[in-house]
Amino acid sequence: MNILEILTQVQSGALTPEQAAAKLDPCARANLEFAQLDTGRMPRRGLPEAIYAPGKSADQITAICRTMNDAGQNAMVTRVDPDQAKAISEALPEASYHAQSRILTVDCAPLPHPDGLVAVVSGGTTDIPVAEEAALTAERMGARIERRFDIGVAGIHRLFRHLDLLRSARVVIAVAGMEGALPSVIGGLIDCPLIAVPASIGYGTGAGGYTALFAMLTSCAPGITVVNIDNGYGAGVAAAMINRNSESRK
Amino acid sequence: MNILEILTQVQSGALTPEQAAAKLDPCARANLEFAQLDTGRMPRRGLPEAIYAPGKSADQITAICRTMNDAGQNAMVTRVDPDQAKAISEALPEASYHAQSRILTVDCAPLPHPDGLVAVVSGGTTDIPVAEEAALTAERMGARIERRFDIGVAGIHRLFRHLDLLRSARVVIAVAGMEGALPSVIGGLIDCPLIAVPASIGYGTGAGGYTALFAMLTSCAPGITVVNIDNGYGAGVAAAMINRNSESRK
Amino acid sequence: MNILEILTQVQSGALTPEQAAAKLDPCARANLEFAQLDTGRMPRRGLPEAIYAPGKSADQITAICRTMNDAGQNAMVTRVDPDQAKAISEALPEASYHAQSRILTVDCAPLPHPDGLVAVVSGGTTDIPVAEEAALTAERMGARIERRFDIGVAGIHRLFRHLDLLRSARVVIAVAGMEGALPSVIGGLIDCPLIAVPASIGYGTGAGGYTALFAMLTSCAPGITVVNIDNGYGAGVAAAMINRNSESRK
Amino acid sequence: MNILEILTQVQSGALTPEQAAAKLDPCARANLEFAQLDTGRMPRRGLPEAIYAPGKSADQITAICRTMNDAGQNAMVTRVDPDQAKAISEALPEASYHAQSRILTVDCAPLPHPDGLVAVVSGGTTDIPVAEEAALTAERMGARIERRFDIGVAGIHRLFRHLDLLRSARVVIAVAGMEGALPSVIGGLIDCPLIAVPASIGYGTGAGGYTALFAMLTSCAPGITVVNIDNGYGAGVAAAMINRNSESRK
Amino acid sequence: MNILEILTQVQSGALTPEQAAAKLDPCARANLEFAQLDTGRMPRRGLPEAIYAPGKSADQITAICRTMNDAGQNAMVTRVDPDQAKAISEALPEASYHAQSRILTVDCAPLPHPDGLVAVVSGGTTDIPVAEEAALTAERMGARIERRFDIGVAGIHRLFRHLDLLRSARVVIAVAGMEGALPSVIGGLIDCPLIAVPASIGYGTGAGGYTALFAMLTSCAPGITVVNIDNGYGAGVAAAMINRNSESRK
Amino acid sequence: MNILEILTQVQSGALTPEQAAAKLDPCARANLEFAQLDTGRMPRRGLPEAIYAPGKSADQITAICRTMNDAGQNAMVTRVDPDQAKAISEALPEASYHAQSRILTVDCAPLPHPDGLVAVVSGGTTDIPVAEEAALTAERMGARIERRFDIGVAGIHRLFRHLDLLRSARVVIAVAGMEGALPSVIGGLIDCPLIAVPASIGYGTGAGGYTALFAMLTSCAPGITVVNIDNGYGAGVAAAMINRNSESRK
Amino acid sequence: MNILEILTQVQSGALTPEQAAAKLDPCARANLEFAQLDTGRMPRRGLPEAIYAPGKSADQITAICRTMNDAGQNAMVTRVDPDQAKAISEALPEASYHAQSRILTVDCAPLPHPDGLVAVVSGGTTDIPVAEEAALTAERMGARIERRFDIGVAGIHRLFRHLDLLRSARVVIAVAGMEGALPSVIGGLIDCPLIAVPASIGYGTGAGGYTALFAMLTSCAPGITVVNIDNGYGAGVAAAMINRNSESRK
Amino acid sequence: MNILEILTQVQSGALTPEQAAAKLDPCARANLEFAQLDTGRMPRRGLPEAIYAPGKSADQITAICRTMNDAGQNAMVTRVDPDQAKAISEALPEASYHAQSRILTVDCAPLPHPDGLVAVVSGGTTDIPVAEEAALTAERMGARIERRFDIGVAGIHRLFRHLDLLRSARVVIAVAGMEGALPSVIGGLIDCPLIAVPASIGYGTGAGGYTALFAMLTSCAPGITVVNIDNGYGAGVAAAMINRNSESRK
Repeated sequence: MNILEILTQVQSGALTPEQAAAKLDPCARANLEFAQLDTGRMPRRGLPEAIYAPGKSADQITAICRTMNDAGQNAMVTRVDPDQAKAISEALPEASYHAQSRILTVDCAPLPHPDGLVAVVSGGTTDIPVAEEAALTAERMGARIERRFDIGVAGIHRLFRHLDLLRSARVVIAVAGMEGALPSVIGGLIDCPLIAVPASIGYGTGAGGYTALFAMLTSCAPGITVVNIDNGYGAGVAAAMINRNSESRK
Repeated sequence: MNILEILTQVQSGALTPEQAAAKLDPCARANLEFAQLDTGRMPRRGLPEAIYAPGKSADQITAICRTMNDAGQNAMVTRVDPDQAKAISEALPEASYHAQSRILTVDCAPLPHPDGLVAVVSGGTTDIPVAEEAALTAERMGARIERRFDIGVAGIHRLFRHLDLLRSARVVIAVAGMEGALPSVIGGLIDCPLIAVPASIGYGTGAGGYTALFAMLTSCAPGITVVNIDNGYGAGVAAAMINRNSESRK
Repeated sequence: MNILEILTQVQSGALTPEQAAAKLDPCARANLEFAQLDTGRMPRRGLPEAIYAPGKSADQITAICRTMNDAGQNAMVTRVDPDQAKAISEALPEASYHAQSRILTVDCAPLPHPDGLVAVVSGGTTDIPVAEEAALTAERMGARIERRFDIGVAGIHRLFRHLDLLRSARVVIAVAGMEGALPSVIGGLIDCPLIAVPASIGYGTGAGGYTALFAMLTSCAPGITVVNIDNGYGAGVAAAMINRNSESRK
Repeated sequence: MNILEILTQVQSGALTPEQAAAKLDPCARANLEFAQLDTGRMPRRGLPEAIYAPGKSADQITAICRTMNDAGQNAMVTRVDPDQAKAISEALPEASYHAQSRILTVDCAPLPHPDGLVAVVSGGTTDIPVAEEAALTAERMGARIERRFDIGVAGIHRLFRHLDLLRSARVVIAVAGMEGALPSVIGGLIDCPLIAVPASIGYGTGAGGYTALFAMLTSCAPGITVVNIDNGYGAGVAAAMINRNSESRK
Repeated sequence: MNILEILTQVQSGALTPEQAAAKLDPCARANLEFAQLDTGRMPRRGLPEAIYAPGKSADQITAICRTMNDAGQNAMVTRVDPDQAKAISEALPEASYHAQSRILTVDCAPLPHPDGLVAVVSGGTTDIPVAEEAALTAERMGARIERRFDIGVAGIHRLFRHLDLLRSARVVIAVAGMEGALPSVIGGLIDCPLIAVPASIGYGTGAGGYTALFAMLTSCAPGITVVNIDNGYGAGVAAAMINRNSESRK
Repeated sequence: MNILEILTQVQSGALTPEQAAAKLDPCARANLEFAQLDTGRMPRRGLPEAIYAPGKSADQITAICRTMNDAGQNAMVTRVDPDQAKAISEALPEASYHAQSRILTVDCAPLPHPDGLVAVVSGGTTDIPVAEEAALTAERMGARIERRFDIGVAGIHRLFRHLDLLRSARVVIAVAGMEGALPSVIGGLIDCPLIAVPASIGYGTGAGGYTALFAMLTSCAPGITVVNIDNGYGAGVAAAMINRNSESRK
Repeated sequence: MNILEILTQVQSGALTPEQAAAKLDPCARANLEFAQLDTGRMPRRGLPEAIYAPGKSADQITAICRTMNDAGQNAMVTRVDPDQAKAISEALPEASYHAQSRILTVDCAPLPHPDGLVAVVSGGTTDIPVAEEAALTAERMGARIERRFDIGVAGIHRLFRHLDLLRSARVVIAVAGMEGALPSVIGGLIDCPLIAVPASIGYGTGAGGYTALFAMLTSCAPGITVVNIDNGYGAGVAAAMINRNSESRK
Repeated sequence: MNILEILTQVQSGALTPEQAAAKLDPCARANLEFAQLDTGRMPRRGLPEAIYAPGKSADQITAICRTMNDAGQNAMVTRVDPDQAKAISEALPEASYHAQSRILTVDCAPLPHPDGLVAVVSGGTTDIPVAEEAALTAERMGARIERRFDIGVAGIHRLFRHLDLLRSARVVIAVAGMEGALPSVIGGLIDCPLIAVPASIGYGTGAGGYTALFAMLTSCAPGITVVNIDNGYGAGVAAAMINRNSESRK
């Protein structure tokens, strides 16, 4: 339906201006001095807006979380460092800080019931913060999560123990740093969507995660898609979107 | 089930060696002199192996296609240039060449019935070959496809005309070159998974597609996943995997 | 005026749907099979859409030019190579090919009367194609053009001869390859806006124009803005926009 | 008029040496031990020299500001960190520190009356320091400023609310980090010059602002010019130059 | 022997499940909460797993070392900073910290007797930590080590004094930063394998070790192989593997 | 033994000048007009000099081969294109051209008897030219070669079929393009030295072989060493050096 | 003497306008349609302007050479390909084409008498074109040249044979591709200025000459200065400038 | 004279072993535990070895300085931070610390008498530390120095005031950060050798000095040679070498 049709329906009374606006611009907006909150993201996209903590003061984050709660939405803040977490928690005692994933949540509504299955795996121990960011994000959007960490390709037998689990998931999230080979190996063994997350683990030619990123994008196993370096949050959102639309697997 | 359990069941007779092998290594293999065809990819991953044409002779490609057909599988060859297509078509008159997407197919079995909906959009006219590679790949794996090309952000009203379609898809594939902004804008407006494909369109700071790639990975719209530059095939596979596991949308 | 206000006015009859649409989406659109022409760019932005030739067939370009002429708009095609130009000119004898700037034009309406002054200068002889692309673009959008080529900084006295001209322009476009120092020197001597265009001239550390680009962006002379490598067209459009809004200078 | 003509007029008495010098070298110079102040930039280019704070001691900055004030010129220092600001303010109590934009000013003369309109917009909250640097710079050079922050493309409806404002400006400055898509979208909707400022916001493939920079330079919306990463000052100068020469818009 | 053969032998009783598993997956595994230790690496690859300290807590490292010792294996931790070393040593008084190489060891079994000869040389004094990491690693895997440091090519006579030693080694490890020319010169003078280690020494175009890395990979002296920047550990492992399989040289 | 000792022995007559020269500079030299042949490389390093064809004329290559044969040494030329091969073979009918590896050989002496075992494996079919360059080089230096091609990680069962062979080799050379994951997987399964060769196979983020190169250097499987992109020759030389010094494996 | 003093002397008659102009702008200029020849470079800098051929037509080059000859100056054109050379030589039979260095000269005056000594050395045979460009340039500016080619560091004894020559030169120019180690080794052995020229020889991590460039800039032998990749001309000019001002060496 | 000739003369008694060694290896060497001092650099190259402080302890630096003084040579240490300087000065009260250039000197012999003229100029105030490192280095090697700082191209009249000085120097060292245009402009105006030093001044596309470096290497003014980013020491050594061999200029 194009704009003119919508407008003609407004003219004819078939649509109220509010109904028409909802089609063209379906989002309300909470206006803080320093941010234009997209509180409409929940109805429009089915996911709450997440707040990216770096570069924001504890006061700003606190105010944003309150505003979201006032709009009846749960708040999730990513990349919160311990000092920020401490200051926010003093102002908002109901806040929960997940230290490993650096996520802070302030919930005012029940979370969705876990459904489906997203498997979150990592190549090494140091990838866990990124993997946890992905897991927690997807979990809050309604996915049931299974974690398998430190199963990288240098000891590939560690991976094979978990093949049955991986093959029963609706989506697999694979986090790996250094040479980023884990998704290529898994991708050749499963038939559900696989989201690869490069981690900025390593030194020298690890190149801050670019080598893992490029290796994942260049993987010879087709059907892998990739998110930004260390972007567990993005992987979690994408996996939850796929998970909630998927039928259960046999 | 771990390896020792499988082996104990073989010892006890609960599994035959063949059944056990199917769990550990479920794939047969066709052995040409120059390639080890993974004809088991169809049962293992639900998708036929695709043949990447560059660097292979027409004779080699012809032989591989024949071998796949002999194994009862349809063959799809990507990045086939017109000269290769001509030579292969002479040897295999049943081959079809899709010039725009540079895909050559040699089918011996019916294709799956189209189901679900994958929307394939592009920012410009020159992105069409990549978009068509994605569309044809997903289509052959069972997806119903809708195409909307040349709807880039420099005239954003062109995009808004198609929002209803985009919102009814199970997956959207968005191809864009130059600054790669199309997925960011679409990603903020829909709630199904979005696969972004950077195209090597542009010059100078377009950087052969890297700028679009990085822009897509850095998108402020969460839930976008990305494939390699110009990798329409990979996007098509990933989209088809998501599509076939998704319930129909309201 | 926000969307709801517009829609309320439609409801009340203060605006017709067409008037409302013009505010929200003021552009008509000509629909070819392979392109969605933005014929509304002229009324919306005051400049005709330019067609980028690389990757388009002569037939496609011819069809686009005809469609634009049919909509009463002049057509301008950039980066046309001689073979494309020959084929298009055979189909459209009224086309003009400007070999040095690689621009092809098909006009059906008079061009705007030249006004104001845009000075287009280049560091060397080999920068001339890029400089001419800028000059012709700005000229077709109504600017009077003065050209001064081969006045680079290795013989800086060549530049000083033209200072009076540069100081009387409304905008200066400076094209330079290699180390890209020309805009820095000019920028320190004039008080009108200066648009710098890096050219992909040079070898080795010229890095295909990136060194000139970065040098221009890093210039210690403030007030310089920059366009993509070899992007004479973009510089011409920006300069013409500034020129047409500027009072004549004393 | 070339050098020889000027010199001949000196010989003939038509020009005094001072008048001739003003044509060839119209600037006086204040000589500190560690800097050669270009106090002539104000008469020559219509803008005061700005002092870049990093790498300079508070004592050096204080001395430069005093020298400029002694020459009857207002002083503006950019990228001043809080410690520098504190030390300078103790020595120069008349200094004003603008914490958000990190600009310190020491004025001895009235600022120009605001005229015209420069709209300064940002994609996100974290871009505000760069946007404020641009806004304050242009304001001090005589532009009237309107600010609209946090209107990025991931919720594109936030942008559309401000289209009327953007269309009434003489120049728009658009600051964006991450994928830098904001200028592409705005550039397609307005017909005045647009200066894009990439911000070093983001992580991973944000590449310290290079992705936004390259995306802006590669924008498919013509007429956009770009400045260095985080260079709000440069954008402000360029916008003010355009603004002061522009007729008011309808 | 392929999988089916192994399984058939299990079925026939020719192999027990445990024997078969040892062929397919010959490694046991110690399962900590945060790591899946590959204690089987010693029997499988002849080298103990090394623990990479960065990003792990002292508690985690302590637990891993204890687990390895419990499995009868010596533990070696690389890139241990002094604070980590202090904390671990308090918990594990038997730990030894090698400050120059930043290696911490916790041994429960005798080390192998030194055999063969690995020569470890460095271009400068600042390369010594990397060189020592290589030397200590190879030594713990059974190699006899000779060190010659600060013999870089800017004073090439310093190198020639040690040619007899270099020519008597089974493997040479050459560590160099800056322009990384040392391996090229040595490689032209000896006939045993040479492993080059680029060090992140230098500034500017040293590019954090990439220039040395690329120079070593591009060396005109054939037979040189290279490891990651600063990767003394990897060079030590590779050299020890070559050393233990080599006959003594004449 | 240092220079002064050598010279003192010359003075005392303990060494003849020729014997002393052999220690300091043990190489004769064949002087062509355009090249200073290092015919001493054979006695000094145990390998003949190879001639790199690109940039040399067929006449120059022919002359160099003749000179080497005259010195009693076999000649090997790498990267010979078919046109060069044809021209050289006309002048030197005894030349052999190995089309797949692009190597041309002109032998005047018997090759060494094959001994030991170097396994040469590749990830894909298109890696074969690089793998063959490595295999032929090592073979000519005395190694027995086993080849296993197209066994990449996307179908990892293809690799496992060859584990017994890989585990019986003295050295493994693994060639892989795209994401370069093959050496990481093999490296975790064997205990002999592994030389990884990145191939410039792939597109986009394959980055001309740099992604494979960096992935191999960053591999989490220790003990892997790496050569330049496509450098089969270098890998062959290094492997042959290791092979000829190794005891046979159990 | 500053501008005002010069102008006061003009006013007082102490300087004629022409004498004053010579101080401010001492260069005459020949004005072709497509180039502003700097025929004053000879008196100002003591070297004739060189013409860079790429991107210029044979007609343009011919006209420039004629104009320079008419001004009594010898003409030198660099990077002339054989087709250009043929066309120019037909128009200008007195032109000489130096095929190896790709330089074309058209002389109308005697060259300076060779004096001093510039040693030009190269690492390999393929570096010779760059080395010859340097040699011929310096020779035409009055330097006596000695060439020593193919003396790279992989067989370092080849270099030592020429140490006496290198130590007797006023300047050494060292051309090297691949890892660019030659200048580091020479630089440690001589005490005259050394100009290093990186050559774009090699593949993979040779990176088109950047690795050699960075290695030379990062050299641990102090006193080396560097020019652009393949810039034999620039090295020749710099060396000739140093040579002509140097006393003869002992 | 080649090696065999030298050795034959030893045999014949024409040369003593010491005399022969001086030809092959003319340098003595002081052997510390952690460094092999090249005390022979002074007689071999005419310049004392400089010590690069980063990565060395104050104790190590102190010991090296003492060793050099004991050998009768003055010691110069570069990049000494204030803490190192303080610790060294306590142990060596005769040490002098030059804070601006970060050089520490410990002299035991008189410095050479200043002769010739090296002009050291910088584009801005923040380039002064690099410029001072160059000036002090050249001065200690016997050059007379003139400094002119903050004369960059954004106010090019500042440069022209100093042309007479620049034209009277034997060598000019030009330090510039940001876009690095200063050497291009100076290089077109003088006829003595010019050494350009890129400084890591700037942000964003200044790229840590790489933009200035590449701009200087790509300069359209021939005869410029370049050193590493911030390498004032290297420029000073090269300039002093040129200066001491140059006749005085008219």
